[in-house]
Amino acid sequence: MDFAAELKRHVARLEQGLDLHLPAATTRPARLHTAMRYTLAAGGKRLRPVLVLATAELFQSVAANAREPTDPLPAAVAIECLHTYSLIHDDLPCMDNDDLRRGRPTAHKQFDEPTALLAGDALLTHAFALLAEGYAGQPTLAHALIRELADAAGSRRLIGGQMEDLLAEKKSDATAEELEFIHLNKTAAMIEAALVMGGLLGGERPGPTLALLRRAGRHLGLAFQIIDDILDATADTATLGKTAGKDAKADKTTFVKLHGLEASRRFAAELSAAARSALVTLPGDKSFLFALITAMAARSS
Amino acid sequence: MDFAAELKRHVARLEQGLDLHLPAATTRPARLHTAMRYTLAAGGKRLRPVLVLATAELFQSVAANAREPTDPLPAAVAIECLHTYSLIHDDLPCMDNDDLRRGRPTAHKQFDEPTALLAGDALLTHAFALLAEGYAGQPTLAHALIRELADAAGSRRLIGGQMEDLLAEKKSDATAEELEFIHLNKTAAMIEAALVMGGLLGGERPGPTLALLRRAGRHLGLAFQIIDDILDATADTATLGKTAGKDAKADKTTFVKLHGLEASRRFAAELSAAARSALVTLPGDKSFLFALITAMAARSS
Repeated sequence: MDFAAELKRHVARLEQGLDLHLPAATTRPARLHTAMRYTLAAGGKRLRPVLVLATAELFQSVAANAREPTDPLPAAVAIECLHTYSLIHDDLPCMDNDDLRRGRPTAHKQFDEPTALLAGDALLTHAFALLAEGYAGQPTLAHALIRELADAAGSRRLIGGQMEDLLAEKKSDATAEELEFIHLNKTAAMIEAALVMGGLLGGERPGPTLALLRRAGRHLGLAFQIIDDILDATADTATLGKTAGKDAKADKTTFVKLHGLEASRRFAAELSAAARSALVTLPGDKSFLFALITAMAARSS
Repeated sequence: MDFAAELKRHVARLEQGLDLHLPAATTRPARLHTAMRYTLAAGGKRLRPVLVLATAELFQSVAANAREPTDPLPAAVAIECLHTYSLIHDDLPCMDNDDLRRGRPTAHKQFDEPTALLAGDALLTHAFALLAEGYAGQPTLAHALIRELADAAGSRRLIGGQMEDLLAEKKSDATAEELEFIHLNKTAAMIEAALVMGGLLGGERPGPTLALLRRAGRHLGLAFQIIDDILDATADTATLGKTAGKDAKADKTTFVKLHGLEASRRFAAELSAAARSALVTLPGDKSFLFALITAMAARSS
């Protein structure tokens, strides 16, 4: 398995999907659709949609039945729309007030605040519309995918994590428990959902296999966020493609601040190993997923 | 049929549903869930959820089959969550910058901007989660409801109307065509969806009956918005429960500015009549829906 080539294949497929499954930039109102596409097109790691595509392929490659495999692309695009909405809203002046994202001006800098707000709202809504449209012929699957995504993105998880993150920023003494709540929900929830949605698209129904995928996502998500904290403390803005050193400047509680760099690196490595362990009993060739977990742990941006 | 008593019954049912189908205010993070409930609890006309409940009952009252009727309450709560998110985001400083809504401080005044932004995001997400959870036993129905709501709330309709409304505010010479695009999408889309979702809950499948409901919603929605424009020009803030006279102050293009008060009133009356006509061939006792249309045309707030 050539990891770089496989990753490139999944990312290229996703990027074709973004073009295919978003309204054209010229669709009325053009300013709104242009803004939606602007942030989506800015790239990034595409971790969540790649997890959807790779996990769906894993299960489809070993499926005993001969029916046509379900296309995982609408779901991969939907999860990237949802992730991108959360970035646009996080970057707004009343939130993190960030000018730079993925090396380009953030949506409210490139357009304006109301357009960025509405583009975020529209990407969130489009994620659900796309799951409903893209799997209209399989309403039970559409329903399961929507339920999974709505739960992961909801007030107890993604948005709840974001809310506690904002509250924690106002005090410099957030506890380890509060920090774990934030990371589990702000970051891990969507990575869990990506793996579980991949399983659903591969034909899995609720049961121990989806539970293993969820556990792998939880570990991978926590590892991912700890590495984000490490990179914020150690990398420079040009490498990151977003403003570096923000956490220390804001005296924000992070894994690095609570536990130090060395312990944070060890913890991230342990979580990556735990993510691999959760996947090991799954059927099929997991080498791409294993390599992806390794690459995420070793990333520099 | 006692219209006031029937309306009160539907509103009371909806308000019980809001309490039942939203996370408790104490659910972590409590600040977020408190803010979600704050704006939902502020009242308002509850037009969209009442249309869902009344339309579902209309079809269920004449259904030939004896199976247990589907509970329309989760869908009624979902559409009110979606409407309320749109109000919270519209009121934000970067949008209409309004301090007052339904006679109470807007969410960003009562809490703060980030909390209001996230409460809006969470209500939007909760609308879809609730449709997925509330109709988990009927995934085909859940799918149809989600598809309808996501389309009505999406970038081509509700959010698209909001975007063009913002663009129109920047110029004082919006055309009648632009104004109709705004009203059809910013207001009528969700009223169409309310009627269509009521039909789906009542057991209707896509076909001429749902098309009639959609047409009635389009007329009622346009009438509703024209009356909003008339009230903004003629009523006072205390009666409206929101800031009056904003349109003229902003030199905003409205039906009243384009066509004058008299023609706007006539147009609203014609649209209300057209909404009634679209419903007239439906089965069952439509007297509540007819009276609701009349009440909306005669409202003073």
